[in-house]
Amino acid sequence: MNENVKVAIIGSTGYGGVELIRLLASHPRAAVTSVISSSSAGAPIAEGFPHLSEIRTDVLDDVDPALIMSKADLVFLATPAGVAAKLVPSLLEAGLKVIDISGDFRLKSRDSYETWYKKEAAEQQYIDQAEYGLAEVYGDRVKGKDFISNPGCYPTATLLGLVPAIKAGYIDPATIIIDAKSGVSGAGRGASLGTHYSELNENFKAYKVNKHQHIPEIEQVLSDAAGCPVITTFTTHLVPMTRGIMSTMYATIQGGRSLEDFISLYRHYYEGRRFVRIRNAGIWPATKEVWGSNYCDIGFAVDERTGRVTIVSVIDNLVKGAAGQAIQNLNLMMGWDESLGLQFVPAYP
Amino acid sequence: MNENVKVAIIGSTGYGGVELIRLLASHPRAAVTSVISSSSAGAPIAEGFPHLSEIRTDVLDDVDPALIMSKADLVFLATPAGVAAKLVPSLLEAGLKVIDISGDFRLKSRDSYETWYKKEAAEQQYIDQAEYGLAEVYGDRVKGKDFISNPGCYPTATLLGLVPAIKAGYIDPATIIIDAKSGVSGAGRGASLGTHYSELNENFKAYKVNKHQHIPEIEQVLSDAAGCPVITTFTTHLVPMTRGIMSTMYATIQGGRSLEDFISLYRHYYEGRRFVRIRNAGIWPATKEVWGSNYCDIGFAVDERTGRVTIVSVIDNLVKGAAGQAIQNLNLMMGWDESLGLQFVPAYP
Amino acid sequence: MNENVKVAIIGSTGYGGVELIRLLASHPRAAVTSVISSSSAGAPIAEGFPHLSEIRTDVLDDVDPALIMSKADLVFLATPAGVAAKLVPSLLEAGLKVIDISGDFRLKSRDSYETWYKKEAAEQQYIDQAEYGLAEVYGDRVKGKDFISNPGCYPTATLLGLVPAIKAGYIDPATIIIDAKSGVSGAGRGASLGTHYSELNENFKAYKVNKHQHIPEIEQVLSDAAGCPVITTFTTHLVPMTRGIMSTMYATIQGGRSLEDFISLYRHYYEGRRFVRIRNAGIWPATKEVWGSNYCDIGFAVDERTGRVTIVSVIDNLVKGAAGQAIQNLNLMMGWDESLGLQFVPAYP
Amino acid sequence: MNENVKVAIIGSTGYGGVELIRLLASHPRAAVTSVISSSSAGAPIAEGFPHLSEIRTDVLDDVDPALIMSKADLVFLATPAGVAAKLVPSLLEAGLKVIDISGDFRLKSRDSYETWYKKEAAEQQYIDQAEYGLAEVYGDRVKGKDFISNPGCYPTATLLGLVPAIKAGYIDPATIIIDAKSGVSGAGRGASLGTHYSELNENFKAYKVNKHQHIPEIEQVLSDAAGCPVITTFTTHLVPMTRGIMSTMYATIQGGRSLEDFISLYRHYYEGRRFVRIRNAGIWPATKEVWGSNYCDIGFAVDERTGRVTIVSVIDNLVKGAAGQAIQNLNLMMGWDESLGLQFVPAYP
Repeated sequence: MNENVKVAIIGSTGYGGVELIRLLASHPRAAVTSVISSSSAGAPIAEGFPHLSEIRTDVLDDVDPALIMSKADLVFLATPAGVAAKLVPSLLEAGLKVIDISGDFRLKSRDSYETWYKKEAAEQQYIDQAEYGLAEVYGDRVKGKDFISNPGCYPTATLLGLVPAIKAGYIDPATIIIDAKSGVSGAGRGASLGTHYSELNENFKAYKVNKHQHIPEIEQVLSDAAGCPVITTFTTHLVPMTRGIMSTMYATIQGGRSLEDFISLYRHYYEGRRFVRIRNAGIWPATKEVWGSNYCDIGFAVDERTGRVTIVSVIDNLVKGAAGQAIQNLNLMMGWDESLGLQFVPAYP
Repeated sequence: MNENVKVAIIGSTGYGGVELIRLLASHPRAAVTSVISSSSAGAPIAEGFPHLSEIRTDVLDDVDPALIMSKADLVFLATPAGVAAKLVPSLLEAGLKVIDISGDFRLKSRDSYETWYKKEAAEQQYIDQAEYGLAEVYGDRVKGKDFISNPGCYPTATLLGLVPAIKAGYIDPATIIIDAKSGVSGAGRGASLGTHYSELNENFKAYKVNKHQHIPEIEQVLSDAAGCPVITTFTTHLVPMTRGIMSTMYATIQGGRSLEDFISLYRHYYEGRRFVRIRNAGIWPATKEVWGSNYCDIGFAVDERTGRVTIVSVIDNLVKGAAGQAIQNLNLMMGWDESLGLQFVPAYP
Repeated sequence: MNENVKVAIIGSTGYGGVELIRLLASHPRAAVTSVISSSSAGAPIAEGFPHLSEIRTDVLDDVDPALIMSKADLVFLATPAGVAAKLVPSLLEAGLKVIDISGDFRLKSRDSYETWYKKEAAEQQYIDQAEYGLAEVYGDRVKGKDFISNPGCYPTATLLGLVPAIKAGYIDPATIIIDAKSGVSGAGRGASLGTHYSELNENFKAYKVNKHQHIPEIEQVLSDAAGCPVITTFTTHLVPMTRGIMSTMYATIQGGRSLEDFISLYRHYYEGRRFVRIRNAGIWPATKEVWGSNYCDIGFAVDERTGRVTIVSVIDNLVKGAAGQAIQNLNLMMGWDESLGLQFVPAYP
Repeated sequence: MNENVKVAIIGSTGYGGVELIRLLASHPRAAVTSVISSSSAGAPIAEGFPHLSEIRTDVLDDVDPALIMSKADLVFLATPAGVAAKLVPSLLEAGLKVIDISGDFRLKSRDSYETWYKKEAAEQQYIDQAEYGLAEVYGDRVKGKDFISNPGCYPTATLLGLVPAIKAGYIDPATIIIDAKSGVSGAGRGASLGTHYSELNENFKAYKVNKHQHIPEIEQVLSDAAGCPVITTFTTHLVPMTRGIMSTMYATIQGGRSLEDFISLYRHYYEGRRFVRIRNAGIWPATKEVWGSNYCDIGFAVDERTGRVTIVSVIDNLVKGAAGQAIQNLNLMMGWDESLGLQFVPAYP
């Protein structure tokens, strides 16, 4: 499986889709051969996205599995919740490889999906077929697969920050508290009072406290890592910026582990994985340090007074939290180096 | 003690000082008769602060207790750490009332001050004399006092959010985790890479994790409320905005208390206190909802799955977290209504 | 006409209306007795505007002239274009005084309104009856009137910056170029891609070049000041901030006037008008220096190389550009000091 | 001259230098072999720039021509005004190719430099030797040269917007007014009150009106294009954002040229030049549409009422306005395609 690949993007007019276009434009082995949007089919994509002027001169296609099949080998779905659940079966049947960036195939339990997403779940057989592509944790399972479910933005930042410590028994899984913050692009391109500039600028707000649909996704992976059910306290906040997620995580340390133990554990766990960077003692990452790139940067503080560790993990929600990790999964599926076409230096300042 | 009061402000060229000028301009019973800055003495204050053009035409005075005494009855200190410790004795001796907005007199233990602030502490007798002016908790002790130590910004947001629950035994004090976020004005007006626009804009960062000098202040009050020593995990983050603090607090619930119990407890505790507003169930405050005002707004989420409560508390760090609460303390000292001259509607949007 | 006044606000759920509520809350002689919104009638206003919690506990009224008449003496209209044109006649007939913040009664020519606003104009008799309330220019005509048309935000900043020079013949009216910039709140509270945070943050854009509906309003007043028809080049830009307008204006100097001549002319013209502040030579105002206040600050640069003057004028678009000037007009109508209840110090930082 | 090139960067710890590092990281034929900073020599570059962690593990070199010569073939200078004037002679003598991003060699007149920059000018022979690298205008002269002076950020946006119209006689050069706006990164990485977050956020300000040192650079090129001396009115403003420049330019149209004439003229002039994109009628570019890329996007409005054209030109000040155009010049010097390694899609949103 070593040829180049032609890809189509369903949901090209959302932020996830248009970021795929940006990133894939410099991928050496993948070419975007169809940009697809049910709502804007027929219009030149650069009309709605002038930053693509003279870069992409093609017209948006409609969602049509036969048409997609005639143009592409693999399709990314960057669609709202509930859409991929219905589309994916026909795409797989048509013989396409599929990477779903929406949350429709992440939860193994249909009940859980319906509880948290308030939508009808996908059919169980397709859920079972989907490989959950948290690249640095489950990357080995992705290789050679045809259907990948790409992790959510909050789960990516959070899980990369917690999995090694849980697997190694360094923290008590019952004590995990996750305080997460996201830039506004995570809310998507839909216009609402909740995404209005004047409402969000010079404002910091909490939302969906204990109610965010990424909670079961996080708990599913943490439970898998711990070998027992894990439940967490998870709060989401909106930061007046466009891109970036920080997950600040708290847990009680087990086994008297020190700051150096944590740093060393994580460096070992992520050895050879180019996109996770562990900060030295006393340094915590900031979201800007990964802006526009596929990195996840992690730092630690150990408080001997309280016996707790504080883990700070940052990603660009549209890259490592969506389009970038999806391309990383594409690379893994194809048996290529996972960093192919993704070696961007973060944009600073 | 019912006459009007003439006030001087030491540190008029910092953000705390200039906010005092803004707020006091519409106070019906206090007049700012001297604006003081050791670094800029002799210059018209409006030169450095054009927003004060034609509002304040006076020149900055030097720090001189005799001069201050000749012009004012009461002095606010909005000075960097370590300055008030040295100035306050001579001001009190000169017969002035004093409200210190810096942290120099908040910690009752000199050792603790020197450990966290890395500066020489004030003399113990003056520390003992200072009344800690967390208005809604210790307001009764402020009345008639001559020397008030005004609480820090993070402690104000945090303590107003925790004290009622701790006093009532609704939460386990050993489990408290505080995830705090502040706008950049909290870092003061000093220019550094850490306050540079291009470094902070479109960026969210953690800083001083477990090391912030407000930790002992918070723990001192929580211990007082709990009746036993309380230690906490406390993280501070910088938000790309100018004003506003949110403290998101986590603790394990005791006694099976429900969301309604918390709301009802806090409404009862703060009854008659105009500046604390408790949100209804399912609503969490945002920093913009208190921008420019002396309010502290608080909301709750109770998670039955984890048995934890999440408490969200917001203030404007320059008002309720500094100049506004200082004026509230002035009002209390003078025996006036605590809201005198402070009834601003938050600026929205 | 010296009693206090009860006011109603139609359009209380827009940014102009809610700013009226904020400013009037501390007005000593006016009380808001009815907040009105056709779209949200029956709901507590604080539900949609939590910053008003416990400040305003009333419910939004529907638009009903008889009901308004029973509660108020005067009504502000802060409504979208086209609404006031239809409502005002019945309000005036009901005996209410009216201050219209929308643009429906600013243009004396119905044709011009229909050309630029693309809506049906109000009836000519009401247009004729409306006094255009650019307070520092036409304030004398406002006194004792019953129906005021409040100027637009761009026109206010621009006209206060140009009228004195035109009246005095210091500049050639044929050479005026106006480069204007506004914060996003000027676009109103409606949600659209054009007000989406992620689209506007870290972005600066031009819009409606030569097409903005404020052009005929500006030209109408400039022509009046010049005594002959004046046409201008006018460009509007959107700044990634919430509040503030800057108008940067260019014109060829006549009569060899110097920088000092301009400063002196403007100081003389605005003598006794508290809300216009003229900067010293070499200093230009910034929007933050008037944030939240009713000030209009103006600075100048004279370029001997090109023979042109550059005039920089700033206002807060929601205060001096809308609600604040409307209250100033209320004060003038009632024969009160124009600054009554408006003496806010700008919020800084 | 078709081999690959090793480059050194003097001033690697400023925004221009660190952007060169970012962009060159994906250049297929250039390798950064030495990062140089006189102030931080000896420190790992990633220490001050954590976004470069594990991307660049080298230590900053000191400024030493012999050392540079041993490591590199070509050197970029991204230094403050006055530094390159002194360094360049020794670098050229050492046999290095030089691209100077500072303004030290842009003005052909030493007097003019000293008037506007208030520093001692470089020696005339080196000024004469420097080729001014406005790539789309003077690119042909750059080929094969050893010493390039890279244009300023404001001049790049402005000149690309004006040169075609002036050369073609479509506008009257005597009527040009330039209203320019820049993000804060243009002010460099130095900390001052003028770059303080709290002072700039939610603020829009004018600065250096008629005094900016880019004025003589703009006029030098416009005069060359017009074939006669051109003087302009030029105003600079600071926008609360990090990256991006917009130049809004006004001039009186000559020869009755229409909007279509302008669009067609510019498309013809920039034919084959990948980095200039001309918008269709009625569309104006926004700075975000070029963010992080080497594009300059230009749009037009023609006002028949006033006979003036409004030209809107945007660039990313750190890319096309500095590091990107410098690499474009590197490509031209080496005889490569000018877009080599620069084909980034703008980051959106």
